Amino acid sequence: MRPAAIRPSGRQPDQPREIQLIRDYTRHAEGSVLVAFGDTQVLCNASVEAGVPRWLRGKGQGWITAEYGMLPRATHSRSGREATRGKQGGRTLEIQRLIGRSLRAAVNLKKLGEFTITVDCDVIQADGGTRTASITGGCVALVDAIRYLQREKQIKTDPFKQLVSSVSVGVYKGTPVVDLDYPEDSAAGTDMNVVMTEDGGLIEVQGTAETAAFSRDELNAMLDLAEKAGQSLFEHQREALQIRR
Amino acid sequence: MRPAAIRPSGRQPDQPREIQLIRDYTRHAEGSVLVAFGDTQVLCNASVEAGVPRWLRGKGQGWITAEYGMLPRATHSRSGREATRGKQGGRTLEIQRLIGRSLRAAVNLKKLGEFTITVDCDVIQADGGTRTASITGGCVALVDAIRYLQREKQIKTDPFKQLVSSVSVGVYKGTPVVDLDYPEDSAAGTDMNVVMTEDGGLIEVQGTAETAAFSRDELNAMLDLAEKAGQSLFEHQREALQIRR
Amino acid sequence: MRPAAIRPSGRQPDQPREIQLIRDYTRHAEGSVLVAFGDTQVLCNASVEAGVPRWLRGKGQGWITAEYGMLPRATHSRSGREATRGKQGGRTLEIQRLIGRSLRAAVNLKKLGEFTITVDCDVIQADGGTRTASITGGCVALVDAIRYLQREKQIKTDPFKQLVSSVSVGVYKGTPVVDLDYPEDSAAGTDMNVVMTEDGGLIEVQGTAETAAFSRDELNAMLDLAEKAGQSLFEHQREALQIRR
Amino acid sequence: MRPAAIRPSGRQPDQPREIQLIRDYTRHAEGSVLVAFGDTQVLCNASVEAGVPRWLRGKGQGWITAEYGMLPRATHSRSGREATRGKQGGRTLEIQRLIGRSLRAAVNLKKLGEFTITVDCDVIQADGGTRTASITGGCVALVDAIRYLQREKQIKTDPFKQLVSSVSVGVYKGTPVVDLDYPEDSAAGTDMNVVMTEDGGLIEVQGTAETAAFSRDELNAMLDLAEKAGQSLFEHQREALQIRR
Amino acid sequence: MRPAAIRPSGRQPDQPREIQLIRDYTRHAEGSVLVAFGDTQVLCNASVEAGVPRWLRGKGQGWITAEYGMLPRATHSRSGREATRGKQGGRTLEIQRLIGRSLRAAVNLKKLGEFTITVDCDVIQADGGTRTASITGGCVALVDAIRYLQREKQIKTDPFKQLVSSVSVGVYKGTPVVDLDYPEDSAAGTDMNVVMTEDGGLIEVQGTAETAAFSRDELNAMLDLAEKAGQSLFEHQREALQIRR
Amino acid sequence: MRPAAIRPSGRQPDQPREIQLIRDYTRHAEGSVLVAFGDTQVLCNASVEAGVPRWLRGKGQGWITAEYGMLPRATHSRSGREATRGKQGGRTLEIQRLIGRSLRAAVNLKKLGEFTITVDCDVIQADGGTRTASITGGCVALVDAIRYLQREKQIKTDPFKQLVSSVSVGVYKGTPVVDLDYPEDSAAGTDMNVVMTEDGGLIEVQGTAETAAFSRDELNAMLDLAEKAGQSLFEHQREALQIRR
Repeated sequence: MRPAAIRPSGRQPDQPREIQLIRDYTRHAEGSVLVAFGDTQVLCNASVEAGVPRWLRGKGQGWITAEYGMLPRATHSRSGREATRGKQGGRTLEIQRLIGRSLRAAVNLKKLGEFTITVDCDVIQADGGTRTASITGGCVALVDAIRYLQREKQIKTDPFKQLVSSVSVGVYKGTPVVDLDYPEDSAAGTDMNVVMTEDGGLIEVQGTAETAAFSRDELNAMLDLAEKAGQSLFEHQREALQIRR
Repeated sequence: MRPAAIRPSGRQPDQPREIQLIRDYTRHAEGSVLVAFGDTQVLCNASVEAGVPRWLRGKGQGWITAEYGMLPRATHSRSGREATRGKQGGRTLEIQRLIGRSLRAAVNLKKLGEFTITVDCDVIQADGGTRTASITGGCVALVDAIRYLQREKQIKTDPFKQLVSSVSVGVYKGTPVVDLDYPEDSAAGTDMNVVMTEDGGLIEVQGTAETAAFSRDELNAMLDLAEKAGQSLFEHQREALQIRR
Repeated sequence: MRPAAIRPSGRQPDQPREIQLIRDYTRHAEGSVLVAFGDTQVLCNASVEAGVPRWLRGKGQGWITAEYGMLPRATHSRSGREATRGKQGGRTLEIQRLIGRSLRAAVNLKKLGEFTITVDCDVIQADGGTRTASITGGCVALVDAIRYLQREKQIKTDPFKQLVSSVSVGVYKGTPVVDLDYPEDSAAGTDMNVVMTEDGGLIEVQGTAETAAFSRDELNAMLDLAEKAGQSLFEHQREALQIRR
Repeated sequence: MRPAAIRPSGRQPDQPREIQLIRDYTRHAEGSVLVAFGDTQVLCNASVEAGVPRWLRGKGQGWITAEYGMLPRATHSRSGREATRGKQGGRTLEIQRLIGRSLRAAVNLKKLGEFTITVDCDVIQADGGTRTASITGGCVALVDAIRYLQREKQIKTDPFKQLVSSVSVGVYKGTPVVDLDYPEDSAAGTDMNVVMTEDGGLIEVQGTAETAAFSRDELNAMLDLAEKAGQSLFEHQREALQIRR
Repeated sequence: MRPAAIRPSGRQPDQPREIQLIRDYTRHAEGSVLVAFGDTQVLCNASVEAGVPRWLRGKGQGWITAEYGMLPRATHSRSGREATRGKQGGRTLEIQRLIGRSLRAAVNLKKLGEFTITVDCDVIQADGGTRTASITGGCVALVDAIRYLQREKQIKTDPFKQLVSSVSVGVYKGTPVVDLDYPEDSAAGTDMNVVMTEDGGLIEVQGTAETAAFSRDELNAMLDLAEKAGQSLFEHQREALQIRR
Repeated sequence: MRPAAIRPSGRQPDQPREIQLIRDYTRHAEGSVLVAFGDTQVLCNASVEAGVPRWLRGKGQGWITAEYGMLPRATHSRSGREATRGKQGGRTLEIQRLIGRSLRAAVNLKKLGEFTITVDCDVIQADGGTRTASITGGCVALVDAIRYLQREKQIKTDPFKQLVSSVSVGVYKGTPVVDLDYPEDSAAGTDMNVVMTEDGGLIEVQGTAETAAFSRDELNAMLDLAEKAGQSLFEHQREALQIRR
């Protein structure tokens, strides 16, 4: 294997950015977590509401959904506010669908009962990897919202199944690397987001060749990196939530 | 005069909440200020763009505008995302028009030249007074954006005219009080937002009787409170910006 | 005090324009009033509907709301139709919220019972002061709609509390003046809309410095002018409605 | 032929309602006409703007277009404001396309030169036949707008070709009748709008069977009625415009 | 009469294009018909749903409605997708209202009972006459949907009243012609769409003068052509549906 | 390995559905292909337009984009028309972004020059796998559009790089299977769409766990199936396009 290209940040190919997970960041939401993957900062607020969407009513199960937004100046240059433009863009819709699907894997919806938990992921500052940070931080906020329901005796069993975390991997200048920041992300030949469970299962694998196709070998190298970083993310989540293994 | 009603927060009628103005809060915006009026927290990002709106082109002047948003769970119960609903509500439009008008009073647009500065005020946590906090914090972000233009030698003269700050006043249980928090705001008979300049001038006075009409005397008592609190706000702004008087 | 600047219209500083209030202007609405403040003409139609908005149901009270529109060629140059552009602009929403709040001060909503009265204010011709004319004329249409409900025996008590009227004041070339027409409005340094009750109470005070800040003295001079003009507006309203004092 | 059913209004089958065409109704528009067909009242404002839509640029011709709206309480019960609902309904779009096509038949667009004339038809009070009144009144406003361009020496030749007017006809209780009012319109088996030129030509014929199909004989009887009423409409238009024949 | 102008297609003035009506074209819809008028191809899918629109509930009758769309490249040059532009254009709304009204004439809504049948007419390839093809093919799909309801024993009586078909006629280079294709349509002086019933009744007559007014004689000549072509269309419909007369 | 579950269609786990690729399906588009994967039928029309989007102007390269739509009754039950609802849903936007990215991998955009090719993929009938059919058929339409540009001498070099095809794979009742139809798709535990190049490269890998996480082994088994089916798809594409290898 050729020697690792020097990453702009000086990180090793398998070295993720510093992770922070600050709980109780704002005071109104049932779960409120500020997650930082390096300079990427996302506020994840989980809100509990009684009832479920119309198409789920009467089925005796709950629902988890997510919404995603970016503050206009979270990025290098200002992007127009989606509320002003009158609709959410395709990228936003795609990301919030991904976050919602991923977080639903953490919960037994039957045991949740007829509650809806909405996880709002709002990017305060962007530097690559906002969707993976949102899933990782959103899962912690979701657990706090479930604990709130238990504390308030609104549900009796525990609907929590497993932690879910996510990290990006890619091929940067020919080398597979983990947790791409913006300068890497915009130059990478291939970019992949991986969503995982604690026991090594895969929830989502979304890989895209930006400039050239990628091979099965590259795919496997990227998945190896993601699995390894996932273990570190799960540890951060467990520590934040004071979960012993 | 009857004795002061006890405010829910225990504050004196003329006592504003604790103010914080944290500069350089995020790293991309030319001016980035987190302002806190007690538990109300607003991120004010000022973005500089070359050029002006179409209707101003060729007039040799600049433009200051503002946009306002609230994170869905900044409030006690979650409110729908305006980007999802497909439009900004009337309250949002009214507030961002007020912020924009107020901030324009701080700047000589002719001297600014053909630049547009957009001040995004996004409410992270709401507890009453989000518009007054936005104006007060937005003015500090605006000054930073102007300093950026000067540092980058894009403008040669100083377009800054004067600081602008804002505070709410109201009549709560019969007593005029300053800087209402949410419990006071929702119970107040009259609510007024005042925007001021350092030399005691008024930029905006917006008073609304919520339950009963108010008298000229009450109006005057409220304006006295606003003026006094304004002096304290200007000191906070000058300190944050290291402006000596 | 310096001598009065000559107003473009030749009016004295404290002289409002000629007022007209024509009831039963169209035949379908329960209250239909054409109000003219000089060349500003607004058709105010009050419509009664059984029921209240969802968030008020079951509270045993009624609701008053207002909508505002301008015919595309009510102004000097044609402005695009809001229905074509697909949304109401910020100015429109701000004005109709003001009209609604003001008119609610005229009525005891508990006594109104579960009826909604919508007051549509459509500007046929604009020459400054369309929102103050809308409030003043809308109040007369609202009284007619209430009388309709009484005549039809749909309500038994009288929900009418007091007349509400409105006038603009401003500082034009350094002199406080009342009821600004378009040429004055577009040149005024300060512009203020005042909504009043018959007994001298204030419902709304919305003052804006367009070019330079205004002082407490100027504010007081403007309020004095508004109060005086208000007395004349109330007389016009009482005369139109044949209310004896 | 069976004897004429008694029309609700007492009119003869071939008797149109009283027509009014009041020019210079508002003061800003280049052409401003209030047209009344009985209780149906429409304000037709023609606005001149330099330039043409993008797809016509550089072709050396002008453009005539129309927009149509109804005040919310022009009708028996209040209908929601299209600006609030966020779009113009299908009926509105269909009507304004019809008005525009009809009015273009009155003008030589080549001779008009690169000007756009927009005719806004806003229904103040509706009692059936708002589209036919709009075309008939809009044509008078259009002629005034053309005269304005000539008076201002902005065009040198006369682009006016011919007057255009319109009337509705229908089969009411088995009898062909002209100029249906609302009670007739809502009960008619067939409803047809006819747009005509002074020399007897047809511009638009839009007939719809509401309950049962109509025959060629009924169609011919309706067209005879429309032609006869058209002569009267043209006389009203010529008189209003002081055109001698 | 002058000799017939040579039609671009070589057809005789009274000669419609070749008609195809292919039933069961797709497998999900209760009625699915591909109709071709020459190169114009429209897929007409009739969908049955239990229930009726809100304003019809409880009246014991059904509803027939239509929607119309054009694939972006059904035409010579690509036109933007209406879903992307965020609304249906005026032409689309006008056409689908016409199709809906026309198809309702084929059915006794009382006998249909509380079912809604939606007929989607999507243009696969356009060459003039898409609305007339939609009505003609949509009627066949509608009959299949009604037969489905009968087969499934959801309705007991037969709500089908009569076949409805439609064809366009126009004046092309001075000669009345039937079933205009795109080259004729874009050059025709007058264009008229006629909707008919089997027994010779008229449902809709929509004639428009594109360049010059048309006379009563031309109108009659066009209607004669439409009636004749209508007989052929009804035969095609009966044959497709295996209806014996 | 446990024995293969019987697929609802009776197919073997590695057996794709019958593929059809019909070129020149409609006559206006520069490339027009009807693609069928069994009962899934998609019309792929490639349209050539001179010029590129604003953000690409002056860079001397072309652009490939895709739009996706579904006829309302392409599915078992009718779904509302996106043009009527006023916006494209998240699923639609996500799919058309995927198709666009995939097709761009087939073309050297620099060699294409300043042309935009839009590939419209409209689903006539849906039975699972509409996005993979769209990519596979869209690529053939794209090649036809490029050949058109070459035939018309609008481009001189050949911008075509390689064929791109796509197939879905999943885990159905514990067994990895290829090219899922609707009954399989809605019951599958994992669903993955793979986009490939002729030489075995991967362009997109999008795998989603619907009910339970999937393992690396399952991922590899699915990719093996996709690669094998891909070879068959490329043969169908080459045959349709008469490309010899």
